[in-house]
Amino acid sequence: MALMETGKYSQGSLLGSVNPDLASERQTASFSVEKLTAWLDGGTEHTRLRRAVVEAIECDPVFSRENQYFESQNERYEAAVRKAVHLQKKMDEMGWTENGPEFKALSGDLAFLLHRIFTRSISMLGSDQQIAKWIPLATQYQLIGSYAQTELGHGTYLQGLETTAVFDITTQEFVLNTPNISAMKWWPGDMGRSATHTVVFAQLYVNGKCYGLHPFIVQIRSLQDHSLCPGITAGDIGPKMNFEHIDNGYLMLQNVRVPRENMLSKFCEVQPDGTYVRRGSQKINYFTMTTVRISLILDEVVIPLMKACTIAIRYSVVRRQSKLKPGEQEAKILDYQTQQEKLLPQLAAAYAFYFISDYLQELFDRGYREIQRKNFDMLPELHAFSSGFKAMVTQYSTSAVEICLRACGGHGYSLLSGLPSLYTKIVASCIYEGENTILFLQTARFLIKCFMAASTGQPVPPSVTYLAAVTPEKCPAKNKLDFLSPDIYTEAYQHMAARLINSTAAKLQDLVQSGVKKHDAWNQCTVQLAQAAKAHCHYITVKNFAETVEKLETQPGIQKIMKHLCDLFALHGIFSNAGVFLHDGYISGAQMDMVTASYLDLLAVIRKDAVPLVDAFDFTDKTLNSALGSYDGQVYQRLYEWAQKSPTNKQISPAYERYLKPLLHKTLSKL
Amino acid sequence: MALMETGKYSQGSLLGSVNPDLASERQTASFSVEKLTAWLDGGTEHTRLRRAVVEAIECDPVFSRENQYFESQNERYEAAVRKAVHLQKKMDEMGWTENGPEFKALSGDLAFLLHRIFTRSISMLGSDQQIAKWIPLATQYQLIGSYAQTELGHGTYLQGLETTAVFDITTQEFVLNTPNISAMKWWPGDMGRSATHTVVFAQLYVNGKCYGLHPFIVQIRSLQDHSLCPGITAGDIGPKMNFEHIDNGYLMLQNVRVPRENMLSKFCEVQPDGTYVRRGSQKINYFTMTTVRISLILDEVVIPLMKACTIAIRYSVVRRQSKLKPGEQEAKILDYQTQQEKLLPQLAAAYAFYFISDYLQELFDRGYREIQRKNFDMLPELHAFSSGFKAMVTQYSTSAVEICLRACGGHGYSLLSGLPSLYTKIVASCIYEGENTILFLQTARFLIKCFMAASTGQPVPPSVTYLAAVTPEKCPAKNKLDFLSPDIYTEAYQHMAARLINSTAAKLQDLVQSGVKKHDAWNQCTVQLAQAAKAHCHYITVKNFAETVEKLETQPGIQKIMKHLCDLFALHGIFSNAGVFLHDGYISGAQMDMVTASYLDLLAVIRKDAVPLVDAFDFTDKTLNSALGSYDGQVYQRLYEWAQKSPTNKQISPAYERYLKPLLHKTLSKL
Repeated sequence: MALMETGKYSQGSLLGSVNPDLASERQTASFSVEKLTAWLDGGTEHTRLRRAVVEAIECDPVFSRENQYFESQNERYEAAVRKAVHLQKKMDEMGWTENGPEFKALSGDLAFLLHRIFTRSISMLGSDQQIAKWIPLATQYQLIGSYAQTELGHGTYLQGLETTAVFDITTQEFVLNTPNISAMKWWPGDMGRSATHTVVFAQLYVNGKCYGLHPFIVQIRSLQDHSLCPGITAGDIGPKMNFEHIDNGYLMLQNVRVPRENMLSKFCEVQPDGTYVRRGSQKINYFTMTTVRISLILDEVVIPLMKACTIAIRYSVVRRQSKLKPGEQEAKILDYQTQQEKLLPQLAAAYAFYFISDYLQELFDRGYREIQRKNFDMLPELHAFSSGFKAMVTQYSTSAVEICLRACGGHGYSLLSGLPSLYTKIVASCIYEGENTILFLQTARFLIKCFMAASTGQPVPPSVTYLAAVTPEKCPAKNKLDFLSPDIYTEAYQHMAARLINSTAAKLQDLVQSGVKKHDAWNQCTVQLAQAAKAHCHYITVKNFAETVEKLETQPGIQKIMKHLCDLFALHGIFSNAGVFLHDGYISGAQMDMVTASYLDLLAVIRKDAVPLVDAFDFTDKTLNSALGSYDGQVYQRLYEWAQKSPTNKQISPAYERYLKPLLHKTLSKL
Repeated sequence: MALMETGKYSQGSLLGSVNPDLASERQTASFSVEKLTAWLDGGTEHTRLRRAVVEAIECDPVFSRENQYFESQNERYEAAVRKAVHLQKKMDEMGWTENGPEFKALSGDLAFLLHRIFTRSISMLGSDQQIAKWIPLATQYQLIGSYAQTELGHGTYLQGLETTAVFDITTQEFVLNTPNISAMKWWPGDMGRSATHTVVFAQLYVNGKCYGLHPFIVQIRSLQDHSLCPGITAGDIGPKMNFEHIDNGYLMLQNVRVPRENMLSKFCEVQPDGTYVRRGSQKINYFTMTTVRISLILDEVVIPLMKACTIAIRYSVVRRQSKLKPGEQEAKILDYQTQQEKLLPQLAAAYAFYFISDYLQELFDRGYREIQRKNFDMLPELHAFSSGFKAMVTQYSTSAVEICLRACGGHGYSLLSGLPSLYTKIVASCIYEGENTILFLQTARFLIKCFMAASTGQPVPPSVTYLAAVTPEKCPAKNKLDFLSPDIYTEAYQHMAARLINSTAAKLQDLVQSGVKKHDAWNQCTVQLAQAAKAHCHYITVKNFAETVEKLETQPGIQKIMKHLCDLFALHGIFSNAGVFLHDGYISGAQMDMVTASYLDLLAVIRKDAVPLVDAFDFTDKTLNSALGSYDGQVYQRLYEWAQKSPTNKQISPAYERYLKPLLHKTLSKL
């Protein structure tokens, strides 16, 4: 408990005392780190629970991450399977639940994440009988499931998938086939080496008619000896930039027959006589994607960004390099303005995105309640928001993690820093669950529609009423301090987003009116449409940050520092995207100089609290798994200790005997 | 020869015919690919020679890259040593020289690059006796050298290095020590496992007086059995984001004694009685760094960027996804404006940087000729240019390669695409040979000095006379076509660069005049100084591209397409950095719309020649080593064939027996 209070819980074996340069940063915090942590967690009780789970996991040697950076793809996979099986046992023992913090604490370490999607898709799309048959087996890992949607030739564009399932009325079976190489299922996790079963998405054909994509449960490996079932070709797709622990796989089907009952049939069914029946709405399927996109923002993007900030900021007060003033001691690198300008905006973004993730979750919960009441009105807004924010947050955060990595110089480039694996993992989030450009364009389509509706006085969702609002034509700020007013900068963002949507809608209209076909016109505007969608998300993020700060009035210490971060996030955005604010003169050149001045001033202010602000994220050393970012700041000693454990130091390379010795022995006589 | 003429030389085993979607792109080229290749190479004879070397290397199985993506760090190291030793043999056989294209063809595959720096530093800094003793041994690999400069605690700031070398007059030896953990040598290549000798940079002490950094030859491993010498602790620093083939190492010295003759003594010497003698100028040392920075731009940055463009652009005409128009076939993804906007500016940048690398090489050659005549006047300019361009080109290209990777979606994320390793390697170039921010600030210091000199009428180098030039206050462009005039956009860049340097100089002066100490003032301006330095380099790159195009008048076909690329590079830069052009009203909002329109129009124009433009880079399939980027475009088949070779498909994982079988066997009775 004492350890917990100082934020040092579960530090494992400290190498010694805390580095004095890092320790001194903690003595001058302008706020209580413990209070900020509790607020971020949603209360002290939540903090206590989360820490208890993290400690239980970190005490268990089966979950150790110690040699992770030295492991091959094969070893990572084996460890991930071991951990997944062990976690299941542990959950039974401890009474942990499927949606608890356990999976988060083990993020990036577990196999069978797609097995969970397999289970979820049966629960959502299966009939009661199907659920009764498959779910108990799946939840006890008595089969290993996967989810086979993406193909070699098609990803985000689902309609293009080519796998076929033809109903054979004589045997009451579906016959599944991979008609050509691009139709091979490619990328599904857990499928390359583990899965015994998978949900295959295929184009359904009955009596020669195509009914579009449907999901089928297909067994691919024997439960007896794990050999491939007849007609199945499957394997691992090989090395990737990260996700070595996951066996992403390929799958080819040649006349694979499954009984009629294996088509998931809550919403659609093929009856014994070949009649195709559709029940209820298919739209709800999109809602699953919405859920996934919203939940990945926190788990796969914001948390990794927070880790990267923690590592880079702690390192930047331990690392001393060169002198700010001649004759003085070398300076902490975080005291250089350029280093502050690299890291502190990323820290502010981590907070901004943590809050927007909350906002989206609330929007989602509200939408879900409506859907339960059979009101689907919020679906388009939810879809547009989950798409645009997934794209904006992943893109921004990927670049932020890269900045953190590069800001640590050579040591950031060592895997032992933890930063390369954070980067190589987060970059995938720009691609999976919908490619970002396509997602931005989906948001843009929604915004253009809303803009058209709003300009003709039709009702639009509250989040986009601003599109029709009248704002001043010039920013009213008179000096640099005015730019620390949330009203001033939020309005600037609002004006800018509305202008970009407005002007792109006008271009679109002009093109169509000049005779360009609608689809060509759309394509000719997509660069600007994507930009407009991004601007919208940026605006909402700033607005939401400002509103979050406002609500903090009962905690003035935290409110003050959060206000600084909010200002920084907003002004950094204006400084880095100056063009879109200056374009129509809403912000003048002279005002942009005020923005720059306030922005640079803020860096020096937040600099003082930088370490407490990352301490509040409350990551344990084992979670960070970084030689640069540990709580005690013993950077150099840890790099050295960890390097010695590398397999490259544990064997004499055969290269010596084979290639070097013959050369070197010639020399002996000559020296 | 026939193969060469079609650009398909050394394609290795084609999987079949060329993908028709890719083939059709080659039939409509607006220029001759072979002529463009020859022009880029500096003549057909150069092309022939380069191809001959590449073919000789690629025919040799010892140099095979086939399993590279599956290899562990240990295996990559062994392969790199094998290749380095074999190359030496091959060079003797074939009469290849140290600076020929052989090293380029094997880039990223060879050990002993630091051995070459070891040799170079002895040649440059050693006395005639030292050269006579060490160089013959080194060139025949009868010892393996390394270059031990960087320490755990210090990189770019050389003055901070802590290793000591104390002269012991009684034994006529230097005693070398690592006084504490941060003084450990860390990162030197070839040192972790290979080197027998190294050049150690240490602070020299004679009679208690420190004379600063000096280089000492130190033996670290036995030539007999490769065991570490007394007083030496050394090993490998472990896994990194890339460079698995290099044994970057650590080194600690405890009272290691070397004879007086082992201090490299061309410029400085400690005489037997302890007298310290300095001869000639030390400045020439910086010239080595200049050389390295200039040569790495082409080899380590532009070539990888060209490879990434080749892979991503070829893939983008093979990949079809979604429909541009309903009812039509799915479209090639390069036909989407957003995909063009991702890739084509990177292609233009690859050409721009190829030309700027030429420009820098010429500047360097001119400078070197002057230096040989004992005229050191060009040194500051050369230093400033090599620093700033190294920083700008590496930063831009890293981001460009990342864009190429992400533009290939999920398949780009597979190591088999070749893109992840291009990225993880190029990102290091932002850090090594001088951290980019520090380099930009060195350029900025030079520019501020020149600006001050120019504004008081003093002479400045020709490349920066523009700082004092009078330009119009408003861009004279009247319509979007005006922005296709190199004069218009070059002048805009010039105006913008001059304005940023001018305004930052003014801020600096204001701060100092208001009483801020000079060093603090400098620190408070560094964000803007770095921006100004970057703007200067961007301007020179645009200007040089435009001049290169102008000189192409004898080859109108090539000139035309190069002009388009030059326009695209310039307008992309204005579009993406709109703020700095709009800030003082030099370009108005309405003009920025013209820039955007011309920029987007150009994408569609260059789109048509995109494939021929990357074909002209003339990379063989083996060099690209990419399942997505091969000449024949058989993307899916190659991904599948390569994946099957992965070690993850070559063993049944122990995870099955240990963890999965016990679970799955429980199920058998239930299904």
